[in-house]
Amino acid sequence: MRSSHGLQPPLVDELVESLRCLPGVGQKTAQRMAFHLLERGGRSGGTRLAAALNHAMDGVRRCDSCQNFSDTEICQICEKPERRNGTLCVVESPSDLLAIEQAGDYKGSYFVLMGGHLSPIDGVGPEEIGIERLLDRVRREGVTELILATNPPTVEGEATAHYIADRLDGQNILITRLAHGIPVGGELGYVDGFTLTHAFRGGRKPLSE
Amino acid sequence: MRSSHGLQPPLVDELVESLRCLPGVGQKTAQRMAFHLLERGGRSGGTRLAAALNHAMDGVRRCDSCQNFSDTEICQICEKPERRNGTLCVVESPSDLLAIEQAGDYKGSYFVLMGGHLSPIDGVGPEEIGIERLLDRVRREGVTELILATNPPTVEGEATAHYIADRLDGQNILITRLAHGIPVGGELGYVDGFTLTHAFRGGRKPLSE
Repeated sequence: MRSSHGLQPPLVDELVESLRCLPGVGQKTAQRMAFHLLERGGRSGGTRLAAALNHAMDGVRRCDSCQNFSDTEICQICEKPERRNGTLCVVESPSDLLAIEQAGDYKGSYFVLMGGHLSPIDGVGPEEIGIERLLDRVRREGVTELILATNPPTVEGEATAHYIADRLDGQNILITRLAHGIPVGGELGYVDGFTLTHAFRGGRKPLSE
Repeated sequence: MRSSHGLQPPLVDELVESLRCLPGVGQKTAQRMAFHLLERGGRSGGTRLAAALNHAMDGVRRCDSCQNFSDTEICQICEKPERRNGTLCVVESPSDLLAIEQAGDYKGSYFVLMGGHLSPIDGVGPEEIGIERLLDRVRREGVTELILATNPPTVEGEATAHYIADRLDGQNILITRLAHGIPVGGELGYVDGFTLTHAFRGGRKPLSE
């Protein structure tokens, strides 16, 4: 897109530039967003967004126990005693945790790997994603089942899962993965080859179950 | 999308809700944006965006002369004496003005209709879009050519153009429209029928010109 630099007030240019920090927002979308916010109807939304951003940037931290986003030292999930039921689910990101919570079926506790997964090439080692903290917690809380819900199709996700499993070897903890298979309601023709292969190899179940 | 309400800290929920004021941003995109801003790498962008929003909401007003966004009483275009050259271009929005400025060829001045165009059904009359202010300026500045660059394919755009033309009738002002035709570099097969019809009827020119 042609640059707007110098063609509009610096305050508008600055707003457009700042909006580009949002994921998926390029120059043209940022310009459209800025104009929308500056119109009479968009002003209250803009003021509210500025306040919400400041509140969230100041007030949201990582939970000391599970590393999820939280506005308190210990997040609302970790605080509930009934969720420390011996099952701990390891996810790569707060959005993975949210997806599981939205499904509503899982009743155990979580651990969110900071930065997602091991990636030695980017300098992300066990320390950076908080694995020591995870192992600490597994020991302290007497976890009996650890569900590794890292994203499986990537090499890094697999490596992270195996690293954690290795470190807990011999501690009598059941380590499980989420089942791979065809999405409920999905049609075979639209499922990718890897998923189909997984469904054939590992996910087959007797019809009587 | 399934609601996240109550499943994450209220400060994060509030941020997600506020991001939805942006055009084209629904629940899922807003959630993704909020998580991105809260990650370590996104925090500085979020703080900068909050500041830019506050500055722009406080500091950007409408130019007293052309009604474009401005951080001063009179905007930087209206301030330049060389742009008061007797030609005034009427556009529906600041983004239309920006597009013309980016093309870089037009050297006259502008007038931005507030709210775009007449729309009696929505209670938008001549007063609301600032037509009196426009007529005032045409008289005061001795405008000799008024270019109506309102968006032509809509009934409202046409009505607005005709209303302005009627009000200036008999004042010896040349009133023009932008030429309709095939976009430069466009292929006939991809041009819509209205544009083709316009190009045949009104836009034909002798090859020697």
